[in-house]
Amino acid sequence: MQRGKFITVEGIEGVGKTTNIEFITRCLSERGVEPLVTREPGGTPLAEDIRRLLLQNRDEAVDATAELLLVFAARAQHFRRLVVPALETGKWVVCDRFTDATYAYQGGGRGVEMGHIAQLENLVQGDLRPDLTLVLDIEVGQGLARARARGQPDRFEHEAAVFFEKVRSTYLERAALAPQRYRVVDAGQPLERVQAAIKPALAALFQ
Amino acid sequence: MQRGKFITVEGIEGVGKTTNIEFITRCLSERGVEPLVTREPGGTPLAEDIRRLLLQNRDEAVDATAELLLVFAARAQHFRRLVVPALETGKWVVCDRFTDATYAYQGGGRGVEMGHIAQLENLVQGDLRPDLTLVLDIEVGQGLARARARGQPDRFEHEAAVFFEKVRSTYLERAALAPQRYRVVDAGQPLERVQAAIKPALAALFQ
Repeated sequence: MQRGKFITVEGIEGVGKTTNIEFITRCLSERGVEPLVTREPGGTPLAEDIRRLLLQNRDEAVDATAELLLVFAARAQHFRRLVVPALETGKWVVCDRFTDATYAYQGGGRGVEMGHIAQLENLVQGDLRPDLTLVLDIEVGQGLARARARGQPDRFEHEAAVFFEKVRSTYLERAALAPQRYRVVDAGQPLERVQAAIKPALAALFQ
Repeated sequence: MQRGKFITVEGIEGVGKTTNIEFITRCLSERGVEPLVTREPGGTPLAEDIRRLLLQNRDEAVDATAELLLVFAARAQHFRRLVVPALETGKWVVCDRFTDATYAYQGGGRGVEMGHIAQLENLVQGDLRPDLTLVLDIEVGQGLARARARGQPDRFEHEAAVFFEKVRSTYLERAALAPQRYRVVDAGQPLERVQAAIKPALAALFQ
């Protein structure tokens, strides 16, 4: 049994992940692949409980290492109990955010040491990494304006623009270092052009 | 300003931690020390939320690494935001369970690699370790009988006796390896003899 492909979709708030994940699912479906679509943090009942703790606005200041460990606790549950078993039965998995988001938000945004993140990545994932990571890239101001139109901001959405600038630049730096795995898509352009850029990245997975 | 002393109290379910922590607090108080009394997992609002996730009975099987990371997430928040700041102002801290419990429950009980626990211990605590760890030791059957008389068992209390045998023996092994930090007290004896054994361990901290 061939392992299914593991596709992750990354980007800051308001970049259009949901819409484009629907598009990805349709593209795969046209080729006869019905993927498991999931998200992080979350994707299982316990991991969704952890997601709520992470996103909740609180009076208590959250220690950056505590946040990092919560993210990886949710990931351990989701990845090891849902994603890996699915991949092993040949199922493809499309995940809304994954470990690149941890490098971007906790590493770039919060300033947690990248080496600590890498250590936890190895602890939780062993050597399994996504086959394709789509980085939907948008100017921070444009993304945040879209996200803020959606309603009450969560604990992350309360961060200042400078936080998201660091998140964005970390995504772009990581993508530049491993171009064979990442595809950066300009998500500020009209949707049909965004999707025209996503399509060949998916097609490459079938070769 | 001299750092306060950090005392941790360990042991399996039903060993009498609560009663003996009250005794420790009284002993310290008689010597003019009013300690911060706290517990793990827990001790801050976020860490208590994580504790609830850990103890809740769930239909979903919990991945051992997810559990380990949740424990350390709660610890990072509690230790770095409450315990260390207290110690740094000279306050003594008495904590109901700490990292030895992680070695005992997740390492001994669940079989998580001890090296992974040590890695997370260093990540969260740097080189700070308790000044005194009291291991209240009791036969598993006797401890569980007491704990079960208290009411609805949590997710850990549902484990079989063999799990707690491994927890207990891990505590004892750790204590044997570092006798300068640990004091093992036979908690199966009458309370006044237990407390007579605790008292000199506390007295040594004032020397």
